[in-house]
Amino acid sequence: MGTGCDVVGIGNALVDVIASADDAFLVTHGLAKGSMALVDAAGAERLYRAMGPAVEVSGGSAANTMAGLASLGSRSAFIGRVADDQLGEVFAHDLRAAGVAFDPPAVGPGGSPTGRSLIVVTPDAQRTMSTLLGAASELGPEDVDDEVVAAAEITYLEGYLFDRPAAREAFEKAAALSHGAGRRVAVSLSDSFCVERYRSEFLSLLESGADILFANQDELCLLGGTDDPDAALTGVERYCPLVVMTRGAAGSTVVAGGQRHDVEAVPVAHVVDTTGAGDLYAAGFLHGLVAGLDPATCGRLGAMAAAEVISHVGARPETPLAALAALLLG
Amino acid sequence: MGTGCDVVGIGNALVDVIASADDAFLVTHGLAKGSMALVDAAGAERLYRAMGPAVEVSGGSAANTMAGLASLGSRSAFIGRVADDQLGEVFAHDLRAAGVAFDPPAVGPGGSPTGRSLIVVTPDAQRTMSTLLGAASELGPEDVDDEVVAAAEITYLEGYLFDRPAAREAFEKAAALSHGAGRRVAVSLSDSFCVERYRSEFLSLLESGADILFANQDELCLLGGTDDPDAALTGVERYCPLVVMTRGAAGSTVVAGGQRHDVEAVPVAHVVDTTGAGDLYAAGFLHGLVAGLDPATCGRLGAMAAAEVISHVGARPETPLAALAALLLG
Repeated sequence: MGTGCDVVGIGNALVDVIASADDAFLVTHGLAKGSMALVDAAGAERLYRAMGPAVEVSGGSAANTMAGLASLGSRSAFIGRVADDQLGEVFAHDLRAAGVAFDPPAVGPGGSPTGRSLIVVTPDAQRTMSTLLGAASELGPEDVDDEVVAAAEITYLEGYLFDRPAAREAFEKAAALSHGAGRRVAVSLSDSFCVERYRSEFLSLLESGADILFANQDELCLLGGTDDPDAALTGVERYCPLVVMTRGAAGSTVVAGGQRHDVEAVPVAHVVDTTGAGDLYAAGFLHGLVAGLDPATCGRLGAMAAAEVISHVGARPETPLAALAALLLG
Repeated sequence: MGTGCDVVGIGNALVDVIASADDAFLVTHGLAKGSMALVDAAGAERLYRAMGPAVEVSGGSAANTMAGLASLGSRSAFIGRVADDQLGEVFAHDLRAAGVAFDPPAVGPGGSPTGRSLIVVTPDAQRTMSTLLGAASELGPEDVDDEVVAAAEITYLEGYLFDRPAAREAFEKAAALSHGAGRRVAVSLSDSFCVERYRSEFLSLLESGADILFANQDELCLLGGTDDPDAALTGVERYCPLVVMTRGAAGSTVVAGGQRHDVEAVPVAHVVDTTGAGDLYAAGFLHGLVAGLDPATCGRLGAMAAAEVISHVGARPETPLAALAALLLG
């Protein structure tokens, strides 16, 4: 893995298994639309059996963000765990083929299979995820490469890591390493339920020093303990110098150094699958940040990358984002 | 597997691994555009490493046709071999979720992995396939279920089976069983190179009794030993009472009982990926045949199913074809 990359992401290595279904399917299977729930092997098998024909594409929140950064021309790396199996091969291939440095720890036989996220896309293009972490759940502090993290301008951590104690240790170790090297730490809240489960932990993390926070409106409100997004922004801003709140089709708001910037969403003719929208917004934003662009322009890059990914099935760009960014930046 | 289905397909069980690339990629890797070549494990690994980020979707020529038939409302079954691995699970899930009966023979550990077809889609939407047969190559006559074949109105055999002696035995056993039960046998020629390799075998197969032949123009010319598609049709018609020749955007020609019917292609606004065009044409045609429709209408159903599948990535229908067929049939 190359040292000195722009952004290193740490997260769950997952292959997405994406199928269409109607809203009744969510009700039948007790799934909360738009959420991510962890499932065990039996639960995953039950759900998979009920799902229609599917498409497999590499996913994982932070991994998607790193693929987006590479597509934009930033140097990115990913730290996460896969098993020595076919889905692990698919995940590693797709990430490297996207231009992301990925050098996962060797694993012996007999462990958990590579993780997967069973994703149901409803006709409104919303995605509902049931994730079997598998090998991803074995990520621990020993997987965090000191050199890579210390040399990366930004270390990007997905909130989903909070679901497992060892992964949270990896998260905390990486944040400390990054700060120790005078670098910045970006955190994505990932999911409303995830914020609910770990609210106090997220708050103390912000206090101890997340430099950049990505959250959607619902997540930020939950974190701020208020129904008012503006109040939530103000509340969280005290802990974190750069807060980015996404609001879907309503755009995004960036609060940087006390200044507020509202950014419009990029209109999409036909929204197909919103999987990866937040991940790719973060990619565009971080790409701008690394390039030294102003917060509003970073937000516009994020909106552009998100628009690309929601216009097709799957959570990684199909069109080279660097070309789109060049158009946007003129 | 239910007895008494309309069509049972026998073929290679494959998962498609689809990536985009430009024409230069085909040149670099010595691939003949539009063809299917068999590769060994080392060749597959070399090519996969060079390919960009990919999408995995279930494929296999006859399996695609069976999925299309199920989508149209026909009862279909598939016979083919997968390994007990993740891609085998994906293949079996997708086929069953599409409504196709599939009950593959149990396999022990240590055999070949589930087969896959590495598919490169060029900007002109043409697909070029490099197939690692894997477990599919272990298909033999013992896998042909006598009851299922004898009870199916039509047994559909893909020409690719001719690439392995044991699979060809399965092919011949199934044809004999079907005819012995007074049923019909349909054969698809699959690929120009495949016809070149096995021309005399295909001709003797037609003589010994294929009732329905599917081929595109190039394949039929190779089989007929002529550059003139009309001469090829006339030549092959002597051996086979029903010959269907597809000609891409130029439509198709059906020769049934000495009568010729020219059928127009269904226009597609944006052709994305031609993988599965022939397979789905066959599905539409066979659905009409089983329903007792006239040859021209069967051809129109084929054209409709092909149009759906080339408008998106992947070789199986995304839109329920029964709804489209209802529109077409009024």
